[in-house]
Amino acid sequence: MQILLTISYDGTNYAGWQRQENAIAVQQKLEETLSFLLKCDIKISGASRTDAGVHALGQRACFTVPELRIPLDKLPTVLSGLLPPDISVTAAEIKPPEFSPRFNALHKTYVYNMYNATHPNPLLSRYSTFVPQKVDIEKMRKAALHFIGKHDFAAFCATGSSAKTTVRDVYACDLELLPTGIIAMTINGNAFLFNMVRIIAGTVLYVGLGKIQHCDIPDIIAAKDRTLAGKTMPPEGLVLLDVAYE
Amino acid sequence: MQILLTISYDGTNYAGWQRQENAIAVQQKLEETLSFLLKCDIKISGASRTDAGVHALGQRACFTVPELRIPLDKLPTVLSGLLPPDISVTAAEIKPPEFSPRFNALHKTYVYNMYNATHPNPLLSRYSTFVPQKVDIEKMRKAALHFIGKHDFAAFCATGSSAKTTVRDVYACDLELLPTGIIAMTINGNAFLFNMVRIIAGTVLYVGLGKIQHCDIPDIIAAKDRTLAGKTMPPEGLVLLDVAYE
Repeated sequence: MQILLTISYDGTNYAGWQRQENAIAVQQKLEETLSFLLKCDIKISGASRTDAGVHALGQRACFTVPELRIPLDKLPTVLSGLLPPDISVTAAEIKPPEFSPRFNALHKTYVYNMYNATHPNPLLSRYSTFVPQKVDIEKMRKAALHFIGKHDFAAFCATGSSAKTTVRDVYACDLELLPTGIIAMTINGNAFLFNMVRIIAGTVLYVGLGKIQHCDIPDIIAAKDRTLAGKTMPPEGLVLLDVAYE
Repeated sequence: MQILLTISYDGTNYAGWQRQENAIAVQQKLEETLSFLLKCDIKISGASRTDAGVHALGQRACFTVPELRIPLDKLPTVLSGLLPPDISVTAAEIKPPEFSPRFNALHKTYVYNMYNATHPNPLLSRYSTFVPQKVDIEKMRKAALHFIGKHDFAAFCATGSSAKTTVRDVYACDLELLPTGIIAMTINGNAFLFNMVRIIAGTVLYVGLGKIQHCDIPDIIAAKDRTLAGKTMPPEGLVLLDVAYE
């Protein structure tokens, strides 16, 4: 029986989603908790490998178990109770054996949060990047629109990526100024390259700071040169909001 | 020269505002940082003694220094840079020697945040209290209105308070359901008793849960009996928003 979980986490204290040596990952915490609860060795497979320090409100992951001994609708509450307070399971559903949380994903949504103010706000700093400089939000909004469409995003990919192709399809990229002072860049696409959202956010910020002109973004995309794009923004501003399936 | 600071902090890792033995308080961190920066022994006096775990976005505190060797308008940025990331100074202004941040306060505003959802949200749990039960928000809103006015709030004061009188004047008490799922109770008054906001929030929640009827609140206030009011809500949901002066 394959179960698909929806998972939220504060990534601050984790070395990312993926299990690894010498550091605690979210996947490991979930596998340990599931194995303890279900009294057998559980491995889980995630939809998205979030980096160290990146957060999630809608990560998805599957595990297979011969028999689920607790009611499916109680599973999120029981798991959330056993997990540390910075990880929570919000939904569980049964999927056919051939379902893959990664390869069946139709599209994913991320938000990148920048806190734009004169002084840092300790109640927002865990989940946003502090930007003390004056920025032009209208120019940033125009910049964001240039990323929509099917493009080769080689200029927006960190080195070390093992992706076969750097072509990705971005369906939406919007900028919103929230009442808290957070500038939220929400991006939806079929899939994302290594650090792609953080580099796009950095490029949008560079436009806001006047370091790049928004009308130059199509050329930067076309040049496929990482050095022409903006900096990779820090992980704390990034949240995986949703992974969508049919 | 007396300086008034506006201070934000994430109270999670502090034993409250007030300096104490055997535990780190926000006041101590500020005094240490100011003493280091200004090269003399600085004592600060706060507007409000927030409890352990309570947060602030608009705490106020004064200190006196013979001569300020750095420009006043640079002080917040320099202090925020020297302080740990969970404390930030957002403003600084000169006040006359007779000014007291506590006794000159005209009114204070607090917000109490409850996260009402089926499962906890790790990105909200640091700054809200998780309420998984179904609540009636309209009844909670009606309950909040009963606290407005000049009342003897003896029923809404924790034991151990040294207040001379338990009469306080509440100018506003509103409830709002935010898009995040947070139920925010914002309360403004001339001053607050020990744990008063947390007990009022607990009483409003009890009304939402059907444990207390909102029309019974005037009688609970009149009875001056702590045992008739709701529970004291945990500190993480409470934020001191503002202290206002003339």
